[in-house]
Amino acid sequence: MNAMTEPGRWNRRALNHAARLARAEQACGTSKLLRAEQTVALLEAVIEPGDRVCLEGNNQKQADFLARSLVKVDPQRVHDLHMVQSVLSLPEHLDIFDTGVARRLDFSFSGPQAGRLAQLVSQGRLEIGAIHTYLELFSRYFVDLTPHVAMVAAHAADAEGNLFTGPNTEDTPAIVEATAFSGGIVIAQVNELLPPGQALPRIDIPAGWVSFVVQAPRPNVIEPLFTRDPAQISEVQVLMAMMAIKGIYAEYGVQRLNHGIGFDTAAIELLLPTYGESLGLKGKICQHWALNPHPALIPAIEAGWVQSIHSFGSELGMEDYIRARSDVFFTGPDGSLRSHRAFCQAAGHYACDLFIGSTLQMDLDGNSSTATLGRIAGFGGAPNMGADARGRRHVSPAWLRAGEEARRGRSGAAGTPRGQKLVVQMVETYREHMQPAFVERLDAWTLAEQAGMALPPIMIYGEDVTHVLTEEGLANLLLCRNDAEREQAIRGVAGYTPVGLGRDRRMVEHLRDRGVIRRPADLGIDPRLATRQLLAARSMRDLVRASGGLYQPPARFRNW
Amino acid sequence: MNAMTEPGRWNRRALNHAARLARAEQACGTSKLLRAEQTVALLEAVIEPGDRVCLEGNNQKQADFLARSLVKVDPQRVHDLHMVQSVLSLPEHLDIFDTGVARRLDFSFSGPQAGRLAQLVSQGRLEIGAIHTYLELFSRYFVDLTPHVAMVAAHAADAEGNLFTGPNTEDTPAIVEATAFSGGIVIAQVNELLPPGQALPRIDIPAGWVSFVVQAPRPNVIEPLFTRDPAQISEVQVLMAMMAIKGIYAEYGVQRLNHGIGFDTAAIELLLPTYGESLGLKGKICQHWALNPHPALIPAIEAGWVQSIHSFGSELGMEDYIRARSDVFFTGPDGSLRSHRAFCQAAGHYACDLFIGSTLQMDLDGNSSTATLGRIAGFGGAPNMGADARGRRHVSPAWLRAGEEARRGRSGAAGTPRGQKLVVQMVETYREHMQPAFVERLDAWTLAEQAGMALPPIMIYGEDVTHVLTEEGLANLLLCRNDAEREQAIRGVAGYTPVGLGRDRRMVEHLRDRGVIRRPADLGIDPRLATRQLLAARSMRDLVRASGGLYQPPARFRNW
Repeated sequence: MNAMTEPGRWNRRALNHAARLARAEQACGTSKLLRAEQTVALLEAVIEPGDRVCLEGNNQKQADFLARSLVKVDPQRVHDLHMVQSVLSLPEHLDIFDTGVARRLDFSFSGPQAGRLAQLVSQGRLEIGAIHTYLELFSRYFVDLTPHVAMVAAHAADAEGNLFTGPNTEDTPAIVEATAFSGGIVIAQVNELLPPGQALPRIDIPAGWVSFVVQAPRPNVIEPLFTRDPAQISEVQVLMAMMAIKGIYAEYGVQRLNHGIGFDTAAIELLLPTYGESLGLKGKICQHWALNPHPALIPAIEAGWVQSIHSFGSELGMEDYIRARSDVFFTGPDGSLRSHRAFCQAAGHYACDLFIGSTLQMDLDGNSSTATLGRIAGFGGAPNMGADARGRRHVSPAWLRAGEEARRGRSGAAGTPRGQKLVVQMVETYREHMQPAFVERLDAWTLAEQAGMALPPIMIYGEDVTHVLTEEGLANLLLCRNDAEREQAIRGVAGYTPVGLGRDRRMVEHLRDRGVIRRPADLGIDPRLATRQLLAARSMRDLVRASGGLYQPPARFRNW
Repeated sequence: MNAMTEPGRWNRRALNHAARLARAEQACGTSKLLRAEQTVALLEAVIEPGDRVCLEGNNQKQADFLARSLVKVDPQRVHDLHMVQSVLSLPEHLDIFDTGVARRLDFSFSGPQAGRLAQLVSQGRLEIGAIHTYLELFSRYFVDLTPHVAMVAAHAADAEGNLFTGPNTEDTPAIVEATAFSGGIVIAQVNELLPPGQALPRIDIPAGWVSFVVQAPRPNVIEPLFTRDPAQISEVQVLMAMMAIKGIYAEYGVQRLNHGIGFDTAAIELLLPTYGESLGLKGKICQHWALNPHPALIPAIEAGWVQSIHSFGSELGMEDYIRARSDVFFTGPDGSLRSHRAFCQAAGHYACDLFIGSTLQMDLDGNSSTATLGRIAGFGGAPNMGADARGRRHVSPAWLRAGEEARRGRSGAAGTPRGQKLVVQMVETYREHMQPAFVERLDAWTLAEQAGMALPPIMIYGEDVTHVLTEEGLANLLLCRNDAEREQAIRGVAGYTPVGLGRDRRMVEHLRDRGVIRRPADLGIDPRLATRQLLAARSMRDLVRASGGLYQPPARFRNW
C-alpha cells in the first residue's frame, strides 16, 4: 500500500469533517437549519477537544447567542479549545476559560474584558498565543491559525442557508472563507430565518460555505462604538483639531485617510465644514476615507466634502442615512452598507496617506501604547494603519513629501528616495485623573514582564510616528536629525508634564526656529478662536438635524 | 427643496447604474445571461467614456474573450477609459490604448507586455497612474480607484448567474466586491453555462453581485506560470539552495514562508526531502506556505514536510493532485482549490516569517529591481511580501531573532526591541548574457527619468533586505553596523562582477570573521556535494512519478 492509497493519509480533514457532520445529524437531525434549543447539542457534536475555534467576536457585532451556548457545553466533552477571534467583548468570551472549555487565545482587541483577561492569565487559566492587529490575525487564519469551527453572526438567512449579514459584515467573510475552505464547520446565528421562497436583500455568504444556521432567540448584540456626542468635545480638542487641519492636512494635501475612534478626531470631522471651509480646503483634503460611518462626519458629508467612505463595520442609527447617501458609502442594491474589515484594513494600510489616532502614553522615542497595568487590551487595527506601509509603491503628494522630509531629516537627503505614510499621534498632555500622557517609560514594559511577553505591547512604534500633536503644539519628527532632537521635539510639545518640564529650552527654541516644533501662533492659529462655536454640530441633536432626520441615534445618546 | 430631496444629489450612482442597465436592456434584451455575439453591444451600452474599468487581468487566469470584445467597441462611443487591473498579460490589454478606447492605466505587473507598454508611454498614447503591489491596488479599489465596470472570468455560471471560478479564484473576489457594492457593473465571461436546475460545484461569487454573464466561445486563457522543469536546475542553484536551507531556514527555524517564482526557489523545494532530511530538519522548518501549488513542492509534500498551503492562484495540471491532497490545500467541498490573491498576499505580508526571491539587479545599498531599460514591468506581489511588516505584533522565533540581530547591528542593542521579517534576495552574480547582477546604479534610475516617474521603480528596498545569497556566499545585512559595512557585505558575495572585484579585502575578511559573510565552507557545506543528484526530482517525469501520476503537466512541459 503506497502513500496514495493508504486510507486517511491525505484526506484526514475530509474524513474528520464527515465524522463531525454525522455526529451532528445524530444529535440534531438532518436539517441544516436548527432551532435555538438544539445549539448546545450541536456544539458538543461538532467541536472536538483542542480545536481552534473562532467565535465572532467583532468590536461591534457579536455572535452572542453562540457564545452563551458555548458556555453551556459539557467541559468533559468540549475542552482545551484554542480560541482565535479578533475581539473579546462579552463576558462569555472569558467564561469559557473559567470552565475549562477553552485554554488558549489568539486575538486582537479585548477592550471591555481587558482587566479580567489579565487576571485569567495571571491565574494560569488562559494562555495567550499572541496579540495581533486585525489583518494579521485574519492572515494567520490562512496559515497556521485556521479555525476548525467558526461561529458567526448574520442578520438573516434564507431557507437554503445563504446569509445576509446586514451592514455589519465586518470579519465574517474572512472567518468563513478560511474555515469553509479548509474542511471546517461554519455555524451562523441569525436574527431572522426566511421561509422557503423568500429572498434575502442580498447574499453576503453563499449557503455552500455554511454548515449550520441557528435562529437566535434575540437579535445579536451590537455596539455603537463610533458615536461621539459633540457635546463632550472640549475647546482644547477644537484647538488641536485646528492644528491638525492647518498644520498637517492642508500642508501635505491629505486626500485619503483613516480616523481612529475618539473625540480628538471627531473634532476634526466637525471642523471641516467650518474651519476647513474658511481656509478654502474643500476638495483639497479629506475626500476619501477608510473608516466606519461616523455620525460626526455627517456635516462634512452634507457640505459635499466627502467622495467615498469604505468601512470596517457600520454604526447603529446610521442605516437610513447611509441608504439615502449611497453615492458616498459602499452599499448593496438594497442600500444597506456592505462593510468588510479585512479589505478596509488593507485600504487603511496601503491606500491611505494618513493615520491619526490617540494614545494613552508616549515615551521619548515616540513609542506609544494604550496598554496599562492590569489590563491586556490589544490594539485592534491601529498597528496596521499606524505603520509605514513599506510595500507601497504608488505615489501621492502627501506620501512623497513625508518621505522626502524623512530623508532630509535622517541623512541630509542622502539615501534612496522613498515615500512615507503620515502617522499622527494626537494627545492632550494630561489625560484623565491628571495622568501625564508623556512618560519616560511606558507601562507596557512592566506589563510585558508581568505577563511574560517577549516584547512590550507597543501600539505604534516611534520609528513609524511622523507627528505628535498636543495642545501645546505640533512636533514633526520627520525633520529630526537624530535621537536627541527627536527627544526634545517630543518634550517640546509635552506641556507641563514632568517630561515636558525636562526639556532643553534652547534646543526646543532651535527646533521651533527650524519648524520642527510649531505652536498655534506659528501656524497662524489664534487660540481664542478655538471655541465650541466652530463645531459644525455641538450636540447629538445637531447631528440628527444635519442629517435631515435620517440619522437615528441609539436611545442612550438621546437626551431629548 | 433641500439637500435631502433634491433629485440626483445623493443617488447619482444609483441613477447612473439604472441608466446603464436600461441601455443594456435596449441593446441586448432583458436576460442577464447573454450570448457571446451580444458582448460588444453590451460593452458599448454599459461603459461610459472616462470610466474606471477593470479587465481581469491576473497573472494566470484571463478574461480574454471580454478583452477581445473591448478591442472591438466603437471608440466614438467608448473612449478614454482608465484601466485599473492587476496584470497586463494579453496583447488586447494594450490594443485598447492603440485604438483610443483606453487612455490611463493603474496596474501591478505587465511581464509579457512590458516592452510594448514602455513604447506606448513614450509615444504618449498611455498615461501610467502608478505601478502597485497587488494588495495595494486592491486596496485602492475601495478608496480612490473603484471600478465603474469590472469584467471578470469564471469557470462556470448557473442559470441564476452565480459563479464558480474553479481553482483560479485569484483576484475575482476583490474586484467584484469593490465594483458590485459601489453601484458598478460586473460582467463575467464563463466557459460553461449550466442549464436551469443544475448546481455549481461551489459558489464563489453570488449571483446578486453579478450584472451579466456571457458564455465565451472558448475556455479562458490560463498560464502555468509556476511550473519549473527540474531538468533546468543547475548545480550552482543546488549549492545556493543548500546555503538557504542550512544558513537561513535552519538557523532561524523558518516555519511560515513564501517562495517567489523561479528556479532558485524550486531548487530549495526539491532539496527539502533530501538535503533537508539529512540535516534532520523535517518538522522544524517549512510547514506552512503562502504560495501557488508549485509542482516542485510535490516531493516535499509526499515526504510529509508540508502542513498547509494557501494560494494566490492555482497551477495547471495540479487539479487532481490537489484534490487527492486536500489535507494540505484550501479546497471547496468538491476538492477543487479555492485560491484568493488578496488574502494570500495578506498572509504573505503578516503571517510569514520569510520571503525569498530572485532579482535582476542589486545596488550597493541592497536595493533591488527587475526593472530594465525599455520595459515597464511592475513587481506583482514582491514589494508586499518583501517588505518588513511593521504592523505585525505576534512573535515567532525567526522574527524575534531577525529583529534582535537588526538592533544589535544598527545600534549595539540600544533602541526598542522589535521583530523583523526575513527578506532574502537570492541571485547568481552573473545573469544571462553575462550581465552582472550587482551594479553601482540600478537601471531603475534611468527608467524613472525616461518615463517621468517620481521615484525609481525599486522592487525591494535595501532597508528591508536581510540576506543576500549568491553562489559565493551568504551576507547577513542585519549584522552590519553601518552603510560602509553593508556595502562591503554585498561586495563580499558579488563574485567576479566589477562590484565584487571592487571589495575591500580586509574588511570583507573581517565581516567573514564576524559571521556577517559566510562562505559554503563556513556553513559546513562541501560544494562538491552540490550536484543535481541531490534534487528529489530531476525532471518533469520525476515530478509526475512523485505525485503517483496525479500531477498532469501541460503538454509543453512533457517530452515523453
